[in-house]
Order: sequence, then structure tokens, then C-alpha cells
Amino acid sequence: MPPASFVLSPEPIPTTPTEFQPGEGAEAQFLGVVRGMEDGRAITGIDYSAYLPMAEKMLRELIDHGQRDHGQHRVFIQHRLGFVAAEQPSILIRVRTKHSGESFDLCRWYLKEIKTRVPIWKKPVFAE
Amino acid sequence: MPPASFVLSPEPIPTTPTEFQPGEGAEAQFLGVVRGMEDGRAITGIDYSAYLPMAEKMLRELIDHGQRDHGQHRVFIQHRLGFVAAEQPSILIRVRTKHSGESFDLCRWYLKEIKTRVPIWKKPVFAE
Repeated sequence: MPPASFVLSPEPIPTTPTEFQPGEGAEAQFLGVVRGMEDGRAITGIDYSAYLPMAEKMLRELIDHGQRDHGQHRVFIQHRLGFVAAEQPSILIRVRTKHSGESFDLCRWYLKEIKTRVPIWKKPVFAE
Repeated sequence: MPPASFVLSPEPIPTTPTEFQPGEGAEAQFLGVVRGMEDGRAITGIDYSAYLPMAEKMLRELIDHGQRDHGQHRVFIQHRLGFVAAEQPSILIRVRTKHSGESFDLCRWYLKEIKTRVPIWKKPVFAE
């Protein structure tokens, strides 16, 4: 896990662990998962699309902002693009810090910022 | 991942993912990791011990409390006992809910309760 990075790609979300480094005492991780219902109707999944140059720019700025203003931490963000089936994760945010409180705060902060700022669109794919 | 369970054992913390179930839209996970320093001195790890009947009772009550008072969720908690080397995780808390906010709140709540209530003792093992 490099100091601060992100991936936007159709690849499945990696859930394999990575090595911890000296000084890291806490990891908060968030997985956002596609639920099988949308407005009361069954869906098979969600199709995610992004205006990639803008989404990448926003994520890079977000990570820079976090690194500059929110204390020392490592962060890794991955968002899937394309079709993600119900009950599969579409986003991973992993934050490592010295103490637990900071890791929760930062993980939550990154999620909120991504939801409100990064242009990724969701199109539910309805079942028959 | 069963609805609500815990493990206290010398086994390494499992980081393999488990299947998501319908309705689960969020997973917050916390890993607490042994840091290589204690009071400015290098340590090789921490020896964890517990008065097992009491620790198990407290964890069972904690999970019952969470399930009863904090909305529908799944939770899995594992704490290692015995020697855990520096840079290895000693505790895992994984909470699944419908929405992200609840998963963060609950994961943090379980961590706080475990730290303050469950009788698990830490003995640092100092390097040479």
C-alpha cells in the first residue's frame, strides 16, 4: 500500500491485506456494497461511469488535501467502474494512522468527499 | 460471517473477505495493529492475556447490547491472545449495515466498549 493512492477501474475491489509499516497502529476500512433493490425494485447491479479525467483530478486533489490538512496517514481508495453486480463492493477506502480515532475520522471524511465531489454516475440495472 | 459473533484466540486475525448478503450496503472494518514502540522503547510485540470466562461473557453481553439497541447489523469481532508481533493486527471489528453512517458509528462504538470493558491485558515484550 503506497502512501496515498487511488484506482478507478473495472477491476474487482481487492480485499487482500497488505503489510503494515512501523508506526501504523490502526486501519479503518470502508466497503460500499451494491444492494439488490432500488426504489423498491429488484436490480441485478449498478453500472458506474465517470468522466475519467475529471474524476481522477478530483481524487488526486482530495488525497492531496487530506495529506496536507489532516495529519499523517496512508490512504488507498478504489472505485469500480462498469457493471457491479448486487452484493459486490463498488468502493474501498482504507486509511492507516497511529491511533484509531483518526483512522475512523479520515475514512469517513474521504467517503463523504467522494460522494459529494467526485463525478461518478450510477445507473441501476433492473431485473426482469 | 454469522449475524453476530466473536473469537478470542491465538489464531491470526483473518483478513479474508466473506460474502455479502442482500440488504447489506456498507461494511466498516477496524484493525488494531501492534506498534513497535512502547514509551519510547522498541518492542518485539505484545503479549495479550485474558480472564477468558469473564472476557467472553463481556463480549457476549456487548454484542447482545449492540444487537438490541443499535439497529439491525451484523458484527464480527476477533481479538488475538498470546504473543502478537509488532506490525501485526491484534483486533478486528467488522460491522455490516444498510448505510455507511451506521457502520462507522457501530464499529467505533464496539471498539470503545471493548477497550473500556473487556478484561484483556497487554504486556509489551521489549527488544534487547
